[in-house]
Amino acid sequence: MSAQAQEGVIYVGRKPTPNYVLAVVTQFQQGFKKVTLKARGRAITRAVDVAELARRFMPGKIEYADIKIGSESLGEPGKERTVSTIEIVLEYKEAA
Amino acid sequence: MSAQAQEGVIYVGRKPTPNYVLAVVTQFQQGFKKVTLKARGRAITRAVDVAELARRFMPGKIEYADIKIGSESLGEPGKERTVSTIEIVLEYKEAA
Repeated sequence: MSAQAQEGVIYVGRKPTPNYVLAVVTQFQQGFKKVTLKARGRAITRAVDVAELARRFMPGKIEYADIKIGSESLGEPGKERTVSTIEIVLEYKEAA
Repeated sequence: MSAQAQEGVIYVGRKPTPNYVLAVVTQFQQGFKKVTLKARGRAITRAVDVAELARRFMPGKIEYADIKIGSESLGEPGKERTVSTIEIVLEYKEAA
């Protein structure tokens, strides 16, 4: 109903890390309750960096709600390759 | 008391991914109940790959018990830099 209930998803790819940090912080400042970072392959390390940097940017405000690891099949039939994936769910912590 | 209760820790660094997969599988085959993968910086993606490959190597036998993300300060005083870290706890699933 309210903006408070909105959840965001950010796909972390090849852009510079600060771009994604800004996206996370912006979504939380807009009132999003949860923001999920999704990444695969080499971008996994970047997604972890984004999560940690966002948490440092808003100290005590963001916590890990969930972290999931998985695999995905990419590419055309006959040329598939499997890449690892990560989903990091960040949650905005209400003031006590 | 028994070997069943042992827990292993594997630090994932710059070696080829299969080396670490073999280490995980070996520890589970020795009766370890839990194996924790620890990595930082760029090795985070490799740790995720190791976890997924080990799970595929022993289908239905390994599950994620816990996944933690954090930061660590590295380097000499005055030259510190912060790196992201991951801890992936894999658990051997008993036959039902």
